[in-house]
Amino acid sequence: MNFCSDNVTGVAPEIMAALAAANEGAAMPYGNDECSQRLEAKFSDLFETAVTVFPVATGSAANALALSVMAPPFGAIYCHAESHINVDECGAPEFYTGGAKLVTLTGSHGKIYAADLAAVLARSGAGVVHHVQPAAVSLTQASEAGTVYSVDEVHDIAEITHAHSLSLHMDGARFANAVVSLGCSPADITWRAGVDVLTFGATKNGAMAAEGVVFFNQSLAETFSYRRKRSGHLFSKMRFLSAQLEAYITDDLWIRNAAHANQMAATLAAGLTSLPGAHLCHSVEANEIFIQLPEAVIEGLVADGFRFYRWEGEHSTTLRLVTAFNTREEDVTAFLEAARRYSTVDSHTVLGELTTV
Amino acid sequence: MNFCSDNVTGVAPEIMAALAAANEGAAMPYGNDECSQRLEAKFSDLFETAVTVFPVATGSAANALALSVMAPPFGAIYCHAESHINVDECGAPEFYTGGAKLVTLTGSHGKIYAADLAAVLARSGAGVVHHVQPAAVSLTQASEAGTVYSVDEVHDIAEITHAHSLSLHMDGARFANAVVSLGCSPADITWRAGVDVLTFGATKNGAMAAEGVVFFNQSLAETFSYRRKRSGHLFSKMRFLSAQLEAYITDDLWIRNAAHANQMAATLAAGLTSLPGAHLCHSVEANEIFIQLPEAVIEGLVADGFRFYRWEGEHSTTLRLVTAFNTREEDVTAFLEAARRYSTVDSHTVLGELTTV
Amino acid sequence: MNFCSDNVTGVAPEIMAALAAANEGAAMPYGNDECSQRLEAKFSDLFETAVTVFPVATGSAANALALSVMAPPFGAIYCHAESHINVDECGAPEFYTGGAKLVTLTGSHGKIYAADLAAVLARSGAGVVHHVQPAAVSLTQASEAGTVYSVDEVHDIAEITHAHSLSLHMDGARFANAVVSLGCSPADITWRAGVDVLTFGATKNGAMAAEGVVFFNQSLAETFSYRRKRSGHLFSKMRFLSAQLEAYITDDLWIRNAAHANQMAATLAAGLTSLPGAHLCHSVEANEIFIQLPEAVIEGLVADGFRFYRWEGEHSTTLRLVTAFNTREEDVTAFLEAARRYSTVDSHTVLGELTTV
Amino acid sequence: MNFCSDNVTGVAPEIMAALAAANEGAAMPYGNDECSQRLEAKFSDLFETAVTVFPVATGSAANALALSVMAPPFGAIYCHAESHINVDECGAPEFYTGGAKLVTLTGSHGKIYAADLAAVLARSGAGVVHHVQPAAVSLTQASEAGTVYSVDEVHDIAEITHAHSLSLHMDGARFANAVVSLGCSPADITWRAGVDVLTFGATKNGAMAAEGVVFFNQSLAETFSYRRKRSGHLFSKMRFLSAQLEAYITDDLWIRNAAHANQMAATLAAGLTSLPGAHLCHSVEANEIFIQLPEAVIEGLVADGFRFYRWEGEHSTTLRLVTAFNTREEDVTAFLEAARRYSTVDSHTVLGELTTV
Repeated sequence: MNFCSDNVTGVAPEIMAALAAANEGAAMPYGNDECSQRLEAKFSDLFETAVTVFPVATGSAANALALSVMAPPFGAIYCHAESHINVDECGAPEFYTGGAKLVTLTGSHGKIYAADLAAVLARSGAGVVHHVQPAAVSLTQASEAGTVYSVDEVHDIAEITHAHSLSLHMDGARFANAVVSLGCSPADITWRAGVDVLTFGATKNGAMAAEGVVFFNQSLAETFSYRRKRSGHLFSKMRFLSAQLEAYITDDLWIRNAAHANQMAATLAAGLTSLPGAHLCHSVEANEIFIQLPEAVIEGLVADGFRFYRWEGEHSTTLRLVTAFNTREEDVTAFLEAARRYSTVDSHTVLGELTTV
Repeated sequence: MNFCSDNVTGVAPEIMAALAAANEGAAMPYGNDECSQRLEAKFSDLFETAVTVFPVATGSAANALALSVMAPPFGAIYCHAESHINVDECGAPEFYTGGAKLVTLTGSHGKIYAADLAAVLARSGAGVVHHVQPAAVSLTQASEAGTVYSVDEVHDIAEITHAHSLSLHMDGARFANAVVSLGCSPADITWRAGVDVLTFGATKNGAMAAEGVVFFNQSLAETFSYRRKRSGHLFSKMRFLSAQLEAYITDDLWIRNAAHANQMAATLAAGLTSLPGAHLCHSVEANEIFIQLPEAVIEGLVADGFRFYRWEGEHSTTLRLVTAFNTREEDVTAFLEAARRYSTVDSHTVLGELTTV
Repeated sequence: MNFCSDNVTGVAPEIMAALAAANEGAAMPYGNDECSQRLEAKFSDLFETAVTVFPVATGSAANALALSVMAPPFGAIYCHAESHINVDECGAPEFYTGGAKLVTLTGSHGKIYAADLAAVLARSGAGVVHHVQPAAVSLTQASEAGTVYSVDEVHDIAEITHAHSLSLHMDGARFANAVVSLGCSPADITWRAGVDVLTFGATKNGAMAAEGVVFFNQSLAETFSYRRKRSGHLFSKMRFLSAQLEAYITDDLWIRNAAHANQMAATLAAGLTSLPGAHLCHSVEANEIFIQLPEAVIEGLVADGFRFYRWEGEHSTTLRLVTAFNTREEDVTAFLEAARRYSTVDSHTVLGELTTV
Repeated sequence: MNFCSDNVTGVAPEIMAALAAANEGAAMPYGNDECSQRLEAKFSDLFETAVTVFPVATGSAANALALSVMAPPFGAIYCHAESHINVDECGAPEFYTGGAKLVTLTGSHGKIYAADLAAVLARSGAGVVHHVQPAAVSLTQASEAGTVYSVDEVHDIAEITHAHSLSLHMDGARFANAVVSLGCSPADITWRAGVDVLTFGATKNGAMAAEGVVFFNQSLAETFSYRRKRSGHLFSKMRFLSAQLEAYITDDLWIRNAAHANQMAATLAAGLTSLPGAHLCHSVEANEIFIQLPEAVIEGLVADGFRFYRWEGEHSTTLRLVTAFNTREEDVTAFLEAARRYSTVDSHTVLGELTTV
């Protein structure tokens, strides 16, 4: 009954089985094992184009390493003010790039918009020695607000990005959830729409610790392997990273897992929005729900043992609820039943009591 | 029959079991799970003193992060010229410290010696603004030459290190092998001898990907968690790192594994040194053997399917042979039998044939 | 007739004379000359407290080096969105700190305000490993909008800064103009109000290339000399930097120069604001004027050979006009006469003509 | 009578005059003044080829900035163990490159030799992810031992450097002295011999604080201006840097100054080597002398007020004596007379007296 995040989950059984299988016998280290060697072909199949892929263990590493080959130390990386790379990585992009600057945009519902980006790039200071130089754009798919960029939206952003000779990065920590939501192919929402480099997340959707940095623009990949090694992200027993990613994209596991998570979120959101006083902050397009609920309902849920985060502060009545590949339908049902139960209490009374304190 | 390295091994069954056990249920991320929470107490027990311990997934990360809190960007880190941090990490210490300089010493058999260190520190340029400033000493235990520092040797190095107000780091990628070799307690060879920070390796000795950065000098640990996060080495599903380390130090698994590896190395070394033309480069004190063998023997072993590295160049007749926690006794026996068989061939003939090519 | 910036000026005669005097005979390098040796005492007198002072040649170096000892690589530096360190130094603070993040506030008239800072620091993420850690606040005195922080304003900002255990930096590229504007002592507006480190600018106000980094909080200065050397900002012939700073603070030259510049700005502003269609963007409190003028007036001034910048874009009708220590009264008079002359032309006609082109 | 270094000198009168001339009127900042604008053509004339040149104020900045565009963060820079960049810049190359590693060679008389470089590059680990990647070679002309590379020596080093796809940097802090010593054209000893980037020193040879970073391989210069700005080395009043460099190369001032310095060194060396017990460490080919002298002579010279450094330690009897553009012939004569005088004293007696103290 833990809706705090999709990273509170364990490992999907298919991936645990793959780790056990990978454990047979000796294997050459640092990616020279058979599983790692066949990974690139499998990802190229998945994306319907030749890609270069580098497994790493965390999303912060994947994002920061990707950006380190897309922006020089004096570069500017355009991203949403609420993006994970800007807010939740303790400055990892700055560290890996040698000090590039994250220039933030503040689009609604966690997304950046082509028109805003165009306006910012029009006065970017490109070529002027006093200013950091435009280098890359990063968008998060699905976004940190649980919304999803459409193919057209990504395409428009990519067009402006490339028109200014910048590269486009997609932080896909919840890429699977976005693909399911869009119902498109992974190719359509990435390179066909203009994405140069994708952080292909697996950890939140069933892996133990595995992300793939996927280069559609392979010329950008040239120095990646040195940067990965030098940051301590080249695993000696690489087979165990590769095996996770291989299992993840085998037999549509990643799609099936994300489809379940999205379905659970949709069910939960539908139930909650019918409650009096409930207000959905963003449309629920993936596996995250941001919703305002009456304080009495929140306190009741907490008392019943449900776990989740109040968003933006301990006194906030906005919750973030995250579903995952292994969220149980009965837990969603129980959550909704409890919410309804606490909702029938006269919330005005409760709030009145609170204000007298 | 792969003697290339101890990182060609898979995962010890006890650790696979621990990963499976850790997979039960939801757990709070980023080290807020139960397993991670109890790790510090377990390591404190193991080392008989209060320690701070940070799990990370690779040895390079462990070393570089440890050094990043021990040396400022303008600092000097004294280490062996052949040390892993100097040669095999693609500049990770320089990256993590923001550009500190590794100043190398060249002691015999892979070790640095107190007298040499004293001589170098006596002319270190401390306090002179033109020179990088002495900050830390790093030694590898067991060393990259398969030798082991005695307690007295570490103590003497620590004394000089601290007399100059530097900190002492121990790269313990094969720490278990060293402890077994010395027959001492982990405390004796670390903090009691003067070590401030230890990279406690587990990956080479049976873990999937896990190392602990252990601070005996806890004041050095103050900023570590931010540096770990910002380098992408804070795992969201941290329980799977912690579970490896916990299993590793439970019921002396780490000691049993290393004892087996060392025993296999001793057997292999004893057999090989009796061959005509064999010459041991360094005394075998842990689980690595550096030995010169006749070319005919080497080629025979390769032809038989044994795998290992020629050391320092493809034409070298010096081999590195590494045993591990799961090296099978029958493989060692087979290796020795094959070596003896090829050794009886008239090597002059073979070499003669080669030179006619 | 160049009002582009105070850095289009040459060197004040008193400072040229000091350079010539400093050129007599041999002198030990790197600050071991007599002039450099006595500088600290002179600055301590000036500021009525013991200070440590480091001469460097540029404002960007002074600011970045100052911040590099005030914020760790994972630190956050709070500053105005339009501040020089954020906008005009090509990422120098990020470079020198090893990747700290500049977190921006957007107060009116180029200033940050205590209440806004308090609000931002209240949700700063201090102690949470995912976020960069609050480290320093930087304010610019006089501000980039030509306004000046009062003693009370600096005091209030300092109070909040220190309450959160951060340090306070003042970018004083135009510190002299601010001091003249306030009519206070240098001590009152710096350490007595809570400033920890000051970039004491001289270049814009008559020096050739000299700024002093002044530490009131001397414990912060500990590693400065190494950082200065390692960034290439320790001059071998240091006497020529020190001589500039010494002459600058001798016989109130810095105050006299700034007083003249401020007076010229006041005269210019007073004249321009009386023109029809003129709109002052910020109150003129130092030596910079930001003013909207009719396009016809701007074009007339340009045609007459006056030089200045259109602010924020080539089609902007907002000008920045900067006066300096050597701005001639007759040039100000000529500027105002020309502006009045072009102002009497029917601007509608002119604009009409333009649109027919 | 100060022979400590050529940086104890002031500024040549021709350069002081140029600074005064540059001080006339307003000038656009950051290199947009007329003097800065014509500098590139003048340097192109001097070197008989199209070059890009960037003025900076210090040699450490020039070297570190040059290397920052020649080596990636994971790069290796090959240089002499005693080179200024390795020993005397407090890690500036590491800072500016983002952590590249200086790999040292130990050739005699302060020089690296083609054969040694070839041997090191043959086992450089190029293309192997575990090792820093070969990127640049740096040699110092004249060397830190006061010796000079011949055109053939530079050519041979360049050939190997380029054969491995590395770039060749020349630290020319005393480039003028080397050119005079060789009697060749600046072109012959730089780009015609294969140098890609030159630090063209002026400070030690008569400038106040000015060096030019000269790119013969102009493609390397692409990002230089951003890196210079972001390190605080772009001067607002750039005309004063450019004016120094322009005067320095006008009417052969740089050659005349260096010729005098070299002549003074030759006279001094010739006189000293005739003394009993004198031993020259390196042949004197530029303006530096490294010589062992009897302790009694050294102490006598010190007592007479001559200043110089004991080299490598306060008890060393090896001296470094440096002459400069303004060394007076009578000072050299006086030095030699004093040395001869103290040399006739029975040095055994003197040392005996000392030991009784």
